[in-house]
Amino acid sequence: MENIIKVAVDAMGGDYAPTEAVKGAVAALQERENVQIFLVGKREILEKELESCTYPEERLEIVPAGEVIETGEPPVAAIRGKKDSSLVVGMKMVRRGEADAFVSAGSSGAILVGGTTIVGRIKGVERAPLAPLIPTKDGVSLLIDCGANVDARSSHLVQFARMGSIYMEHVMGVKNPRVGIVNIGVEEEKGNALVKETYPLLKECKDINFIGSIEARDIPAGAADVIVTEAFVGNVILKLYEGLGATLISKIKGGMMASLRSKAGALLVKPALKKTLKSFDASEYGGAPLLGLKGLVVKCHGNSKEKEFKNSIIQCISFKEQHISERIGENLTVAQEKKEEV
Amino acid sequence: MENIIKVAVDAMGGDYAPTEAVKGAVAALQERENVQIFLVGKREILEKELESCTYPEERLEIVPAGEVIETGEPPVAAIRGKKDSSLVVGMKMVRRGEADAFVSAGSSGAILVGGTTIVGRIKGVERAPLAPLIPTKDGVSLLIDCGANVDARSSHLVQFARMGSIYMEHVMGVKNPRVGIVNIGVEEEKGNALVKETYPLLKECKDINFIGSIEARDIPAGAADVIVTEAFVGNVILKLYEGLGATLISKIKGGMMASLRSKAGALLVKPALKKTLKSFDASEYGGAPLLGLKGLVVKCHGNSKEKEFKNSIIQCISFKEQHISERIGENLTVAQEKKEEV
Repeated sequence: MENIIKVAVDAMGGDYAPTEAVKGAVAALQERENVQIFLVGKREILEKELESCTYPEERLEIVPAGEVIETGEPPVAAIRGKKDSSLVVGMKMVRRGEADAFVSAGSSGAILVGGTTIVGRIKGVERAPLAPLIPTKDGVSLLIDCGANVDARSSHLVQFARMGSIYMEHVMGVKNPRVGIVNIGVEEEKGNALVKETYPLLKECKDINFIGSIEARDIPAGAADVIVTEAFVGNVILKLYEGLGATLISKIKGGMMASLRSKAGALLVKPALKKTLKSFDASEYGGAPLLGLKGLVVKCHGNSKEKEFKNSIIQCISFKEQHISERIGENLTVAQEKKEEV
Repeated sequence: MENIIKVAVDAMGGDYAPTEAVKGAVAALQERENVQIFLVGKREILEKELESCTYPEERLEIVPAGEVIETGEPPVAAIRGKKDSSLVVGMKMVRRGEADAFVSAGSSGAILVGGTTIVGRIKGVERAPLAPLIPTKDGVSLLIDCGANVDARSSHLVQFARMGSIYMEHVMGVKNPRVGIVNIGVEEEKGNALVKETYPLLKECKDINFIGSIEARDIPAGAADVIVTEAFVGNVILKLYEGLGATLISKIKGGMMASLRSKAGALLVKPALKKTLKSFDASEYGGAPLLGLKGLVVKCHGNSKEKEFKNSIIQCISFKEQHISERIGENLTVAQEKKEEV
């Protein structure tokens, strides 16, 4: 029998907690046989939510946690102060090996801080990057890092490139993924100090398929599978993706309602348009993994609904089955040893 | 009689040179009475282009320049080596006061280098930022800086905020423009080292309407009129705007062609959609001014056509009439003196 993957789900995190987290967990249990879920949160509330659900009871367990970390709380203080929060309790399960992964739509800051301080980094990993999948013209790319690691150094970016490459190859099934670094021009002499320093280091990496600089213009067209950048720029890219998509779509919808003629047309194009826009919807791909930790942590959008929770849980299965943490650990240790030999 | 504004146009720059530059110049002359144009480039070629055009001959003059700086050339070497290029000849006219402004769709790098080294910065201006207008939900915002000034310091960003504010108020007619700094969260303690250092300095500026941090997500919704950021991030925002818009629109068009039903609908929505997308087309607003110089330099997109050239030339008229360079000079000198008093 195949191994059961154990996923702890923060049932109290996100705008639609606990309902959507619970629904997502139940959906994942129904879709996959090899997953066991721990719903972390307030027992009475969760029991009530589960009353109306049908699910394999032997594979779902409530793990009680009496506190909730709110989005506005200072992350470090929240992690330290709220030991009985769903976030801290769930992450501790990963640290102790009681769960393979933790999925949460709670406070981003607390997830990032908790990932490093509670779950802990793999030996050799300097920083744990947050790496969401972003939709492109014909698929998805991994944007690494969008986390809290501002003012990164070149050695961090090289590690991000390696981790991202492993993730795309083994979780997403992209053979020999193309790794690009975000730059303001494609020539090798272009860029800010960080990019100029990182570029030659990436060029030297024999274990990744480095294709050079990519301009932000070419990201949506799918110019690279792994898009390496420091967190400030990564965050800007991710947020602009969301904001510009939403604004354009609302303008297009508004434009279509402008005349009787276009209203009639809108009715006809609606199904096709819906399908198109769905392929550009980040929630299709689940949450963003926090890579380089001794166990997987997945950060879902604050406004996640059932589907994103379900997809995030399923992502954890591939991650564990493909031994991503182990691969990252080996890869970065080998890279480190090679460096020391030189 | 009102003053005539003199604009030098790089007739040899851009993907569609010289045809579209010449057509844009002619269109501007037809639309405005108070502009005189110098078409800078190869005389025979320009004379031939003009043969088929109707225009007020007393307000158009060809200024011969035998060389062209190509897009791929290293900017500094090109500016130094090609003294008889349309770009160098046109910029020298601005420096000598023979023209008030210079418009070019040529090499971005050469325009940025030439702006600083040939036209020269206004006293007190540390760096000349490139500040394009970007479309938002209901209007436009000024994105400052998108130029070549990577690894900027906080004092530069404060100057960008002041210059951008003056431009939006006096050229674009936005009363008391809202100035925001691009950040990865809206709380004051968020950000990288540069943003954390700049934030309190902007807060102290009494002459601008600083509204704090804005996230990239809120830029397309029009969260600020002047969006302050260093050039690397600015360039990423600008390029992603273009790339994501193009990808989304091509996907939507493709989606509409997916079935017979949606094809029929597409015919009906086409006019309304075209109008909507037009409002999101950067070329509607002309090129990007390079601010803080002793004369105006406007950088058009490489793929500019007649309309963008025309709009850029008309932008020069407002810029000169509103004494933007003088205002920037006074403002930054006063700010400098205040700083020295402290």
